[in-house]
Amino acid sequence: MSRSKAQRVGVVGATGLVGREFLDLLNRRQFPIAQLRLFASGRSAGQRVPFQGSGVLVEDLTQADPSGLDVVFFSAGRSVAHQYTPRFTEAGAVVIDNSSAFREDPQVPLVVPEVNAGQLRASSSRIIANPNCSTIIMLLPLAPLYRAFGIQEIVVSTYQSVSGAGQAALDDLLGQARAFAQGEQETWTHYDRPIFLNLIPRIGDWTEDGECLEERKLARETWRILEDDTFPIYATTVRVPVERCHSESIFLRTKRDVTTREVVAVLEDAPGISLLDLPTPRELARREEVFVGRIRVDSQDPHVVRFWVVADQLWKGAALNAIQIAEQLIDMGRLSS
Amino acid sequence: MSRSKAQRVGVVGATGLVGREFLDLLNRRQFPIAQLRLFASGRSAGQRVPFQGSGVLVEDLTQADPSGLDVVFFSAGRSVAHQYTPRFTEAGAVVIDNSSAFREDPQVPLVVPEVNAGQLRASSSRIIANPNCSTIIMLLPLAPLYRAFGIQEIVVSTYQSVSGAGQAALDDLLGQARAFAQGEQETWTHYDRPIFLNLIPRIGDWTEDGECLEERKLARETWRILEDDTFPIYATTVRVPVERCHSESIFLRTKRDVTTREVVAVLEDAPGISLLDLPTPRELARREEVFVGRIRVDSQDPHVVRFWVVADQLWKGAALNAIQIAEQLIDMGRLSS
Repeated sequence: MSRSKAQRVGVVGATGLVGREFLDLLNRRQFPIAQLRLFASGRSAGQRVPFQGSGVLVEDLTQADPSGLDVVFFSAGRSVAHQYTPRFTEAGAVVIDNSSAFREDPQVPLVVPEVNAGQLRASSSRIIANPNCSTIIMLLPLAPLYRAFGIQEIVVSTYQSVSGAGQAALDDLLGQARAFAQGEQETWTHYDRPIFLNLIPRIGDWTEDGECLEERKLARETWRILEDDTFPIYATTVRVPVERCHSESIFLRTKRDVTTREVVAVLEDAPGISLLDLPTPRELARREEVFVGRIRVDSQDPHVVRFWVVADQLWKGAALNAIQIAEQLIDMGRLSS
Repeated sequence: MSRSKAQRVGVVGATGLVGREFLDLLNRRQFPIAQLRLFASGRSAGQRVPFQGSGVLVEDLTQADPSGLDVVFFSAGRSVAHQYTPRFTEAGAVVIDNSSAFREDPQVPLVVPEVNAGQLRASSSRIIANPNCSTIIMLLPLAPLYRAFGIQEIVVSTYQSVSGAGQAALDDLLGQARAFAQGEQETWTHYDRPIFLNLIPRIGDWTEDGECLEERKLARETWRILEDDTFPIYATTVRVPVERCHSESIFLRTKRDVTTREVVAVLEDAPGISLLDLPTPRELARREEVFVGRIRVDSQDPHVVRFWVVADQLWKGAALNAIQIAEQLIDMGRLSS
């Protein structure tokens, strides 16, 4: 791979939960950086954030000069993405956006590199959308099984960690655990009730048909990435008192008869996946792979496959996937530097 | 109801997690008690347990005289139930056993009073089996929907609280939360890893077909209680860091076309159920009902019903269901006093 060409990189939302993971991963993966600029809201602007031995000044997104960048990672929510993305693309950068702003825009590729990197080649869009975290994590095992066996339908229940809802939600969970341990009154700001020792079976706003937004995203983004919406996806998304890593209980009805051995063989060969007997989220934080376990084909119906998936949603579900997209763009010669 | 006839009551496993709930509920429900005797292992024998203003001596199960009791609630695990139940039934008592010892015995009724109380009338067995906690909780909404619409298949993923695994597991969770809050090393005895900020997607031993025992119980006991094993039940059972109350994400394919309104109407009329928009386990501890929310029929397929269920598994999933069985037996004149 020819990742030697150093890039002028921007990170928007650099002081947020996902923004910090971007910096960590850019460093760990030795992403080729010629210049690094960080952007955030006026509230965080002026801070210096440590990166590879120096302190990088955080610029005010609303005031900053958007020119001179090759690639900008946006991790700042839907409305900020809508408002500020054009400034950077018009100034010549490619934006990889982590929000839902462009995921349903047919002009914007929605990419999981292991699954549909070809979309990057097929489009000249200067915006690339990073899918929803639960979608990415489900797709890594789903896509190779879809290609090998076909899919009739999917039933998925998620177990999503609190860091997926941002810093305030994480502060709720850990603050409540501390208050509980010290016999103090637990308080909350992000949710309307405690999340410590609790579960909240709703993620995102309600849709008109009784779903919540996360359930809709899981279905629509999966269909779009697989370029096939002929099978139903029945999702139930649930927040659990886990700090980091999303888990998913997945039921798949395949078109072809399969055996557990065949399913395992397909997953063993698939990129970005590790098989484990019993993947549990706490042990798998800050790991790059999607971990798959509890793989079993029903003894009565050889079309019914079940498995359990765990992955760090701040990494493969967000920052890592976006950086992998940028790495693909470099390899394709699609970035400017 | 003629519950005036006071009973001579025994509780085996009285000092355990479920045993204490039995005492709490016998008191709260004003169960008619002429005499209360408590039994436990030699380790706990000799203690005095408070009940309605007096201290009741805990007898050593292995040494105690089993005679003179009308009804005995067993909450002491499978092997203890196998070994000691006959002593009490031969001495004239009816035993309501909370373990899995007799649940597959065709001579022993397996009963959820709201669903199949008729089994109590149809059998003269002196042992009655209390179903598995997750099974009871699923069956309360499932049985009326099964009768109204028929069932083609069920996919269920559970979110089961740690108290379902007993005191040692609960001590793990709460001890780990305290250690975390105080910056100390977390330790564990029940599980092989932390359960605080974690999930463990396995409950009970592995079966030969890649399931765990809880998944098998959920299917087999449901079939037995509905007296219909013609539809598959695909369960994935997961332990979550919740203190109390099990939750379940349930997908149901009905035989008949349904609307959300029809499903809600059936559940509103069903005994033992309360509907809530967003049932969450922590808020619903020590409530007698099974709470059902997130009820939705798929907009594309009117055979697909999904809902979310929460109930206190130490109450409706264990002690409460057993006491309700005893209350039914009293009403039927089946107890001796």
